[in-house]
Amino acid sequence: MPDVLAEALEQVQREVDGAFDAFLPVPEDTRARLVEAMRYSVIGGGKRVRPLLVCATAQLFGVTRQAAVNAGCAVEAIHAYSLIHDDLPCMDDDEMRHGKPTLHKAYDEATAVLAGDCLHALAFDILTMSDTSNDPFVRAELVAALSRASGHEGMAGGQMMDIVSDEQEYDLQQVTRLQQLKTGALLAASVEMGAILGRVPPEGRTHLRAYARDIGLAFQIADDLLDVEGDEEKAGKALRKDEGQGKQTFVTLMGRDAARAQAEILVEQAGQHLASHGADATLLVELARFIVKRDH
Amino acid sequence: MPDVLAEALEQVQREVDGAFDAFLPVPEDTRARLVEAMRYSVIGGGKRVRPLLVCATAQLFGVTRQAAVNAGCAVEAIHAYSLIHDDLPCMDDDEMRHGKPTLHKAYDEATAVLAGDCLHALAFDILTMSDTSNDPFVRAELVAALSRASGHEGMAGGQMMDIVSDEQEYDLQQVTRLQQLKTGALLAASVEMGAILGRVPPEGRTHLRAYARDIGLAFQIADDLLDVEGDEEKAGKALRKDEGQGKQTFVTLMGRDAARAQAEILVEQAGQHLASHGADATLLVELARFIVKRDH
Repeated sequence: MPDVLAEALEQVQREVDGAFDAFLPVPEDTRARLVEAMRYSVIGGGKRVRPLLVCATAQLFGVTRQAAVNAGCAVEAIHAYSLIHDDLPCMDDDEMRHGKPTLHKAYDEATAVLAGDCLHALAFDILTMSDTSNDPFVRAELVAALSRASGHEGMAGGQMMDIVSDEQEYDLQQVTRLQQLKTGALLAASVEMGAILGRVPPEGRTHLRAYARDIGLAFQIADDLLDVEGDEEKAGKALRKDEGQGKQTFVTLMGRDAARAQAEILVEQAGQHLASHGADATLLVELARFIVKRDH
Repeated sequence: MPDVLAEALEQVQREVDGAFDAFLPVPEDTRARLVEAMRYSVIGGGKRVRPLLVCATAQLFGVTRQAAVNAGCAVEAIHAYSLIHDDLPCMDDDEMRHGKPTLHKAYDEATAVLAGDCLHALAFDILTMSDTSNDPFVRAELVAALSRASGHEGMAGGQMMDIVSDEQEYDLQQVTRLQQLKTGALLAASVEMGAILGRVPPEGRTHLRAYARDIGLAFQIADDLLDVEGDEEKAGKALRKDEGQGKQTFVTLMGRDAARAQAEILVEQAGQHLASHGADATLLVELARFIVKRDH
């Protein structure tokens, strides 16, 4: 990983941890268990790819760091809630996440359902804070982008398509659509929110959306490859799950070599969409490269 | 029930059903199951007390009907998602709701978790629609009120205190606090959102907040009484659950008669807070009375 990216990831990890620590003081009543469970899930884990996408995009347009970190925390809170609920016994039934027990294993199922719900609400709460933006138009637009990307027309819709895929054989086009929703929508929202904070009008976001679409697919192809080739210890979670469930993925449908080649083409293409920003876009270009090269 | 209230409830039930029908077209892909589950939960069930609170408050300040109905749908979507998740086997494990099988019984647990999450996101999506308000400041304030009322500082926090109450003996003060969060916060948000739509500044909402606080407690006392005295068929859900779980409620802590008297005092007091609105507040006053007299 190039230094510029390593430093940026470290910085955003520190900032996001600090922000969640401030957002989530543990109350002195019996809600303590709930807030501790929320903190367990959002502090000190995860690569923080989505917050970095928000921050690196926002940086192109001179947005203050606190605004970008707050919006990044909102996306990360949505991402974290979705992982908590996906890990539940009635969903993917996973026991490890980010190298530690999943929330329902560390606490219990009821607390996991509720903590996920509370992180979901927290995301929108953060977006309406005045230090996220003092412009209510920006706040409302951020909420619109994130709620649309996370609901049935985005991430959760993709998750449903994924659940149904046990009973249904998807072709490459359907897997692409599924993944554009399940993984792509939130990555795209991260970039979009950076642009919204930068007051870039929708017609000025075309190249950013193209970048986001490409890295979204590349991200998922890399995930499918990791599921086949990855190291469980580095990944911090169970792998080889797709195969066990007989699931169609980019790897089963394209083969490993073609999938890897496709991911690399997408990353190359993603970088080209940002050419007009020159060296300012270095971080976004390096992040795209990291997304397909990561080992976890 | 007086005609004015019966007609208002019928109208808002029709409007909310119509709005959700429009918000939730069933897609022609494998997300269909998810959207059908969302529709199962939000169309054609529930008394719509919260949407009526929004509409009746908004009406005091000349807000357009569509704006009020949209905001009412957002609160109702939050209420519906919380019932879906509360009914899950790992939470209250309920089989009946609004006289029909709970969502995880009618579909399955994974679909119920996801449909709840999607209704949660839909609530915020609705609030950012331009026909909810063309003023972004109002949209952002609506989101802030609803996200705060539903997360760990509101409804879900109260739900956690309720779960923990199995292990802990709460006194009357703690039960009051629990219920102010679990039930009261969302009822209060309904009134608050009506005032936000009406562009009433925070300092002009004091009497509305006092009304909301009183009906919130009265609502929960009535609920506790219904759990002891109610008819399961009319309620459309399982009753006598508090007693079975040895839970402290207003009824166990105060006794039935004192609880009923307290609810009536609260309702009387709630009406007095609205005296300055004269006959314009009839609907809110009648709704308060209905809340303690309802048999379901």
